Amino acid sequence: MLFSKSFIPILKNIPSEAKIKSHQLMLRTGMIKQSSAGIYSWLPLGFKVMKKIEQIVREEQDNIGVQEILMPTIQSAEIWKESGRYKDYGEEMLRIKDRQGRDMLYGPTNEELVTDIFRSSIKSYKSLPQLLYHIQWKFRDELRPRFGIMRCREFYMKDAYSFDLNDDEALFSYNKFFLSYLKTFKRLNLSAIPMAADTGPIGGNLSHEFIILADTGESKIYTDKRVFNVDSDQTKIEKNSLANLRKEFEKFYSVTDEKYSEKEFNNKVPEEFRLKTKGIEVGHIFYFGDKYSKPMNSSVDYNGKKEFVKMGSYGVGVSRLVGAIIEAKYDEKKEIMKWPQSISPYDCAIIPFLNKGNKKNLDKAVNISKKLRENNIDFIIDDTEENFSSKLKKFNLIGIPSQIIIGNKTEGDNFEFIKIGENPEISNLDKIIKLINQSKKN
Amino acid sequence: MLFSKSFIPILKNIPSEAKIKSHQLMLRTGMIKQSSAGIYSWLPLGFKVMKKIEQIVREEQDNIGVQEILMPTIQSAEIWKESGRYKDYGEEMLRIKDRQGRDMLYGPTNEELVTDIFRSSIKSYKSLPQLLYHIQWKFRDELRPRFGIMRCREFYMKDAYSFDLNDDEALFSYNKFFLSYLKTFKRLNLSAIPMAADTGPIGGNLSHEFIILADTGESKIYTDKRVFNVDSDQTKIEKNSLANLRKEFEKFYSVTDEKYSEKEFNNKVPEEFRLKTKGIEVGHIFYFGDKYSKPMNSSVDYNGKKEFVKMGSYGVGVSRLVGAIIEAKYDEKKEIMKWPQSISPYDCAIIPFLNKGNKKNLDKAVNISKKLRENNIDFIIDDTEENFSSKLKKFNLIGIPSQIIIGNKTEGDNFEFIKIGENPEISNLDKIIKLINQSKKN
Repeated sequence: MLFSKSFIPILKNIPSEAKIKSHQLMLRTGMIKQSSAGIYSWLPLGFKVMKKIEQIVREEQDNIGVQEILMPTIQSAEIWKESGRYKDYGEEMLRIKDRQGRDMLYGPTNEELVTDIFRSSIKSYKSLPQLLYHIQWKFRDELRPRFGIMRCREFYMKDAYSFDLNDDEALFSYNKFFLSYLKTFKRLNLSAIPMAADTGPIGGNLSHEFIILADTGESKIYTDKRVFNVDSDQTKIEKNSLANLRKEFEKFYSVTDEKYSEKEFNNKVPEEFRLKTKGIEVGHIFYFGDKYSKPMNSSVDYNGKKEFVKMGSYGVGVSRLVGAIIEAKYDEKKEIMKWPQSISPYDCAIIPFLNKGNKKNLDKAVNISKKLRENNIDFIIDDTEENFSSKLKKFNLIGIPSQIIIGNKTEGDNFEFIKIGENPEISNLDKIIKLINQSKKN
Repeated sequence: MLFSKSFIPILKNIPSEAKIKSHQLMLRTGMIKQSSAGIYSWLPLGFKVMKKIEQIVREEQDNIGVQEILMPTIQSAEIWKESGRYKDYGEEMLRIKDRQGRDMLYGPTNEELVTDIFRSSIKSYKSLPQLLYHIQWKFRDELRPRFGIMRCREFYMKDAYSFDLNDDEALFSYNKFFLSYLKTFKRLNLSAIPMAADTGPIGGNLSHEFIILADTGESKIYTDKRVFNVDSDQTKIEKNSLANLRKEFEKFYSVTDEKYSEKEFNNKVPEEFRLKTKGIEVGHIFYFGDKYSKPMNSSVDYNGKKEFVKMGSYGVGVSRLVGAIIEAKYDEKKEIMKWPQSISPYDCAIIPFLNKGNKKNLDKAVNISKKLRENNIDFIIDDTEENFSSKLKKFNLIGIPSQIIIGNKTEGDNFEFIKIGENPEISNLDKIIKLINQSKKN
């Protein structure tokens, strides 16, 4: 892709409405454009990042055997009346009347709809467990949308639902998602900590938020630093192994604001390990038993007996993760963003030094790009006539982790290769390709 | 995937509400479930097919250099007031008031929103052409939704938009999409014919519908049979080559109902080539010049002069294609569906003959599946205790084109291999793998 042909509308200045760095960076680099309060369009750069995150989230769901479906955005109010949440949900729910006067709504979450699908499809306990997920747009009519896509109204979310015969099996399902989330965030190069949390409008009595540390986070957290050392790499998708992982985490006090007790914190955490800070919620899992299955009459036959299924739900904010990763990876002072290679909008940026009328370096760039393409390396070439130092600044914001500089310092098959934020190395193209492919694997 | 663990709720009978064969088949094989009038959830089998279609549509957009973005589903009414369509659109538009009392709507199409994005991003003619697409849910509040996902309210659509400096360049863009659509439908194993069509609420004076023949189609079409022989394989993404392709098609009378004139038809088409029949619209392209750019003040600087950009829009119904392909490929009398291998929910079905208590054939199936997995062949094993003939009937409806039967007729490494609807062959596994991989390439 040539920069001059791309749809990446760079802003010269930091827009005044953007208060946190992810919002600022996303607007400056043309990743998103607001279309109305709390509603955004995703332009090519932002779209590519979000899609790559979506794919990682998807693969980790598939890895624990969750089946993908797709529920609609517009739901009938009827099922929400059945569960009792139609009144409870308040003004955050976007309520709609269709042309026939029926009460509809834009789904803020899908417990009711998935329960309705389950009850009409599954009749016997022999078909359990069932784990279903979808990745779909949701709408919550926030009174004060802010922080760009971090607290917006229309957002993209992966939500999964589990259906089991009894508590014991249901906890096994819960723990599968617990591990799956740790793996997901690890692949996104984030250290997300599971914290005991309140269940809020979803309900139930067991819940964890997955939180990444960030000064700009909205959640206050209280944690024992040793929780960062818990290792899930050896955990298997097997009942005991998963239960042990949960126990490992539970050794260390780690809660969000609503669950916090100063006394408990001081009692359980030696002073040297106490950490009070802020974080961003990127995932949230819930176990709520028969809270929905009972009022909605969703049961299976168990040897002639009717058993209400035991359910949990499991959410990851896919669009929100784009912002969360920027909050974690963007060095605001140096003005350098560094995307993890796995979700970078392009694998590599090619930045030729261009003199007006002299196309030599641009020709070199195009030649190099052919070889990159042969090696499945995705690239963008900055063919604009901007001056060289502002090109470098621009690409430091765009955050593609690998840069090839084509200037006057190198000759022949040697180029300056920069891992963003580090010093340039002079390397030949074969070595550069090897380095990029290595970082793609990590 | 084991059938017993999958979420494929098969219905025994044809649901009475389903009037056309695609709707019937999708309900019977558990591809979709209606959640309210004209609104459906996509269950795993239907979801897989739709995602594969989406990917083919995407690749063919990428191939002509269209850039992918993602616009939100909920739009502000303001931009529709600017274009003048807020009043015109009528009751099919789902109108919404948010909690602040603002007029919003669920996008039925995106000309306004994409024009708004363009005008705030692109200032100079040097950045033209710009071709943008997104694949997103739309809502049209049909008075009488029917025919399942063929005429529903919430539907999944690829819509693209082109921005050019003048008519000549804009027609070049139009023709790129014209070719791209022919290629897309060909990859889906459909012969879709471009037909001169009315522009309806989108506007403009040039438009083609891409239509596949089907008795159950809603569109009446009048065409010269020789149009089926026009070949686009040699056409290049280049101005003259594309213009020539358009000319080739225009040699043959081929229109939808609204454009039909009996006199013209009889004059232009020799009797032997006349075809009056029905079809299903799967794509629609429009050229409408400055219909939106002028009222919305979307212009570029052209050597100091302000020029309103010339726009076109280009839609493919992704969710509708699932139904359209069933209408084209499902043999209702024989009760045999055959998905093109490229969009089949699984590459292969493994159907073992199971006696109660005797797991030998199931073990064989699992063994085979390991080798399929090594060869990147996706499969489903029917491990249920259903009797064998109803299993075969079920899989003939599900429509996976390659079946491996594990019965008592074969020994060792030989199995019955069936290309759906054809006679079984006895083959060893290596040969079967080769055959499946071959058909995946087509």
